[in-house]
Amino acid sequence: MPVRPDGTTAQPGPVRLGADALTALRPAADVRITAGLWHERRRTNAEAGIARGVAKLERAGNLSNLRIAAGTEQGEFHGDFPFQDSDVYKWLEAASWQLAGDDAPDGLAEDVDRVIALVAAAQQDDGYLQTYYQVAKPGTRWTELRWGHELYCAGHLVQAAVAHHRATGKETLLTVARRFADHIDATFGPGKAVDGVCGHPEIETALVELYRETGERRYLDLAGYFVERRGAGLLQREQAGGPAPAAGYWQDHVPVRRARTVTGHAVRQLYLLAGVADLAAETGDRELVAVLEHLWADMVATKTYLTGGLGSRHDWERFGDPYELPADRGYAETCAAIASVHLAWRLALLTGDARYSDLVERTLYNGFLSGVSLDGESYLYVNPLHVRDDHEDEGGDQEGGRRTPWFRCACCPPNVMRMLASLPHYLASTDDTGLQLHQYATGRVTAEVAGVPVAVEVETDYPWRGRIALTVREDGPEGEWTLSLRVPQWCRDHSVTVDGAPVGERAVDGWLRLRRAWRPGDTVLLDLELAPRLTRSDPRVDSARDSVALERGPLVYCLEGVDQPGGRVDDLVLDTAGELVAEHRADLLGGVTTLAATGWRRPTAQEPSWWPYRTAETGRPAESAESVGAAAGAAAEPLRLTAVPYYAWGNRAAGAMRVWIPRG
Amino acid sequence: MPVRPDGTTAQPGPVRLGADALTALRPAADVRITAGLWHERRRTNAEAGIARGVAKLERAGNLSNLRIAAGTEQGEFHGDFPFQDSDVYKWLEAASWQLAGDDAPDGLAEDVDRVIALVAAAQQDDGYLQTYYQVAKPGTRWTELRWGHELYCAGHLVQAAVAHHRATGKETLLTVARRFADHIDATFGPGKAVDGVCGHPEIETALVELYRETGERRYLDLAGYFVERRGAGLLQREQAGGPAPAAGYWQDHVPVRRARTVTGHAVRQLYLLAGVADLAAETGDRELVAVLEHLWADMVATKTYLTGGLGSRHDWERFGDPYELPADRGYAETCAAIASVHLAWRLALLTGDARYSDLVERTLYNGFLSGVSLDGESYLYVNPLHVRDDHEDEGGDQEGGRRTPWFRCACCPPNVMRMLASLPHYLASTDDTGLQLHQYATGRVTAEVAGVPVAVEVETDYPWRGRIALTVREDGPEGEWTLSLRVPQWCRDHSVTVDGAPVGERAVDGWLRLRRAWRPGDTVLLDLELAPRLTRSDPRVDSARDSVALERGPLVYCLEGVDQPGGRVDDLVLDTAGELVAEHRADLLGGVTTLAATGWRRPTAQEPSWWPYRTAETGRPAESAESVGAAAGAAAEPLRLTAVPYYAWGNRAAGAMRVWIPRG
Repeated sequence: MPVRPDGTTAQPGPVRLGADALTALRPAADVRITAGLWHERRRTNAEAGIARGVAKLERAGNLSNLRIAAGTEQGEFHGDFPFQDSDVYKWLEAASWQLAGDDAPDGLAEDVDRVIALVAAAQQDDGYLQTYYQVAKPGTRWTELRWGHELYCAGHLVQAAVAHHRATGKETLLTVARRFADHIDATFGPGKAVDGVCGHPEIETALVELYRETGERRYLDLAGYFVERRGAGLLQREQAGGPAPAAGYWQDHVPVRRARTVTGHAVRQLYLLAGVADLAAETGDRELVAVLEHLWADMVATKTYLTGGLGSRHDWERFGDPYELPADRGYAETCAAIASVHLAWRLALLTGDARYSDLVERTLYNGFLSGVSLDGESYLYVNPLHVRDDHEDEGGDQEGGRRTPWFRCACCPPNVMRMLASLPHYLASTDDTGLQLHQYATGRVTAEVAGVPVAVEVETDYPWRGRIALTVREDGPEGEWTLSLRVPQWCRDHSVTVDGAPVGERAVDGWLRLRRAWRPGDTVLLDLELAPRLTRSDPRVDSARDSVALERGPLVYCLEGVDQPGGRVDDLVLDTAGELVAEHRADLLGGVTTLAATGWRRPTAQEPSWWPYRTAETGRPAESAESVGAAAGAAAEPLRLTAVPYYAWGNRAAGAMRVWIPRG
Repeated sequence: MPVRPDGTTAQPGPVRLGADALTALRPAADVRITAGLWHERRRTNAEAGIARGVAKLERAGNLSNLRIAAGTEQGEFHGDFPFQDSDVYKWLEAASWQLAGDDAPDGLAEDVDRVIALVAAAQQDDGYLQTYYQVAKPGTRWTELRWGHELYCAGHLVQAAVAHHRATGKETLLTVARRFADHIDATFGPGKAVDGVCGHPEIETALVELYRETGERRYLDLAGYFVERRGAGLLQREQAGGPAPAAGYWQDHVPVRRARTVTGHAVRQLYLLAGVADLAAETGDRELVAVLEHLWADMVATKTYLTGGLGSRHDWERFGDPYELPADRGYAETCAAIASVHLAWRLALLTGDARYSDLVERTLYNGFLSGVSLDGESYLYVNPLHVRDDHEDEGGDQEGGRRTPWFRCACCPPNVMRMLASLPHYLASTDDTGLQLHQYATGRVTAEVAGVPVAVEVETDYPWRGRIALTVREDGPEGEWTLSLRVPQWCRDHSVTVDGAPVGERAVDGWLRLRRAWRPGDTVLLDLELAPRLTRSDPRVDSARDSVALERGPLVYCLEGVDQPGGRVDDLVLDTAGELVAEHRADLLGGVTTLAATGWRRPTAQEPSWWPYRTAETGRPAESAESVGAAAGAAAEPLRLTAVPYYAWGNRAAGAMRVWIPRG
């Protein structure tokens, strides 16, 4: 484990807080996942994703771009976007987090060194590095801040370099990143050559991490400049670099301190806020924390899908109006889910509030994990909650419903890789009073409490079973400390024993706090009630009105056509009075618990009409579409509907899928 | 009335069928609207729209482009799009139809001549004419068929020229159009310089009209070439002119004869099909007619808004999947509504089926008329069925909810102008057996039946009242002929008298056919039942599930925030058992009949939740969102909800609006 500038050791993961950071919680020193769903997903990610990623980058031309910029290869710039380099950096970051563990694929370290050498060779003498402006548009650097993504690419370079340094202790990539960061620091700012911000936030969080890794305060100050300068409309006034949407698209319409709702491009918004959270953590700026808390609460209450997905609109990949959450055209970009985890984790650390980790859990198990296939070979860019029976897939990255090995705009695949590689980091935290477990997976958590190591072993079949068994392995400081276990927001009942005896504590505000003088071998059994449940939505969400979703534990379920009688889903109606039956199926989709429900098929499918709207009699209750279904259902044979976890959809035949099911 | 090449006279309007056209019906010779809603809308259109349109074109730079191309002005190309010229042509077409009547504004004829002179001066020696390629991109003509819109602009030039010639008999613009058409005919086709189709259909319908106007068969053949050549993927293979979406976007994925559903960009699809209908009318190609009937039926049954609006997606202005009809993000471009009227009218003529005119009526009174403000000064580009309470208007042409004097992409305003100017043309038709009235407005209809003139005078307060009074003024051929009156699809009951005496005939398939030996002075009174009604939707439409819309006659109604207690609409619930009360309000919105209903406000608004999804108990019926509202309503004071015609929304304060209202 590498040594920090201040001499301490810490887990190689993102958000390694500075020594002076002002947060409620700090990441745990070391978390290992050794079995279970996330272990399997991480292993697949390492072997099918990260290990083969370098070949995909080669095929897509990203590595050629670096060689062309270095002068070691001839040719034109490859790819459709100026941010092609960022795919390389995100892969490097993912590979670095993987190298930090004991489960890195063979040859990965050499691949990383090889790619870093390509990156270093492409860097210009003054530190500048972006192959698009070096190869395709020389002489125009920093003139197209709207769409150029130069600071965005720099940010991903920095994040990769920080990860690589934390994981390996090597300076090779960090040197490149610092040279570029120094160039940016010399170029941007009041009275310097350029006064501006990037069309796509990302540099902010990266510079705070670079400050954490190097101790250089000016990186933190530069992050502060980019955060505070945003919202003055600089991007709108710039003329070069293609047309501008509304200023809200890139959060340049209002200073972040005055923002009252998340808006515009979802990934841009969330990357920005993650950077703001990093800044606030290191500066102790409580005003920024309050802004973040408000924005997050507004977002979660009005603009978040049941899956944790974010971004309602295909056009401009934007957030929509409050409660504008279409299921079929939901965008919910995989990258936005990842960015949401980044933001929520930072807020969890800042505040200690369990709700942030509730959203992390929901997002990881649903709207994020849906973004990668079970075999780890292909990806979804968008993650809708409904693919209609007769969905016409017009192709392209964003159409949804079709997993793809790589995209023309390949932001999501390497983002998935870095999320899964860094996943253990999001499971646990510490403060002076004890250890907090935010997410549950079999493995081991190590942390320092009041400067003394504590370690807890976790065994669980979560999310398939609700029992979490904990054994204290290192007992930490003298006297009592608190083992805090998050009881998820979805959980209706829970019980807990310590060394086999029931205890009286119950979760308060999401935390079950067990204060004891813990000894090695002490055991805790937490049982979370895991009965399948029906979930309804705020009625302002059109796609969910008069419908229910099936959930169990942290998992959102969906009906895929392939599992239903007749193969179609749009006319299915759920009998909400029927029983829900959970069955674990080791043979299905890598091993999942399915839910069986009863329902009917609406007669509308057999009743084509030239005009799909009908008159209902005035003066008595309108005949409800659903009551039509129920009436038909009363006469018809009930159907057995089978739901699978949402994250696993689209791994068999392409076809229809839906999360919200009209109720009978 | 101008004289046709074959020596007969005909109404100056679009779709003047050729002498050999094989259609069930033919347009009536002359239709005048002299009072009522459409008369007012047409007068406003003439005075505030068309008469001031030339100044708007001047301000937007469209006329400068023509002068720059002609060499009489210096400067760069004005505007963001290559199709700026089409705005001029659509205005010329609108002005020409207006000149055909007796109600043209003073000075309009001179304006038209002046603009035609600019157009003529800009034309190149070989007949080519598009200022974008002449001024901004010389030397690249016909190389960017994807996005260049050259044939599209040519089509609008031809339509304007045909209108101008039909209305005034003048050859000035027709000469320009023919020269361009001849150039296109010499350039495009098998073995010629270019084998290709335009990214935006429009030339097809225009060339058939040019054939009709000139009798030159080769224009019809060229239209046939463009129709049949489409669907081979030529646009996808082309490399120049910007990125290509999926081939379905411009209907280049499948030959039209094999198309089974409308797809892609709605206006492109509908313009293409209108051209196909024109082609089929003149060639008698029954296969094409069958294709059109199928596509239209599929579109109406699965992809049409209650307002007649078309196009569900903002991204790429596309049709969506079947039943994908979001209310809040419905696109329903004004131009698509206009194109739908063009298509449906041609199908009405081809087949005689009343359903086509049902859709024309619904579209004209709702999804089309909403596109222009009551004062005729500003426009909507998109026509959603719901603007949420906290809608964030990010600006731009397409955001909806804000009427704008002119757009950056100004396709809709002059399209509205030509639709309203040509409106009388869509009211009536003839065949050998009699006269058909498709739409009702006070005025006079003249036609030839078996070569002998008939004339009928119409008096009605439609759509406010259901009585239509007809008086025969010219009695036509010897013996009996049939006066056919369309009884709209929405009408639940109707009665009719002839000369004061009830008659036994009732509508069959939408047509009330009165066969008599008509004499001048004979009167018919048709009474259409006009009680307010509740309408429900196919339940596959998410935005309408468990909701109702208010309708009366051909009008769809909406709740605007400004009319409701508390000013907000998203939490209103309609009591479907309550009474609906119609009240005519001469003082409101230019004179409208309002509908009053009762309802409640859901308590959700007072109940902010950090997570908008809630668990419903398994094993018994899920608590419906609406029953929450109803339960609250039972205790709360009922609210009086006031609905106004959808077409009139957005003419007062900007604010929330909705068509579909959850039922209590």
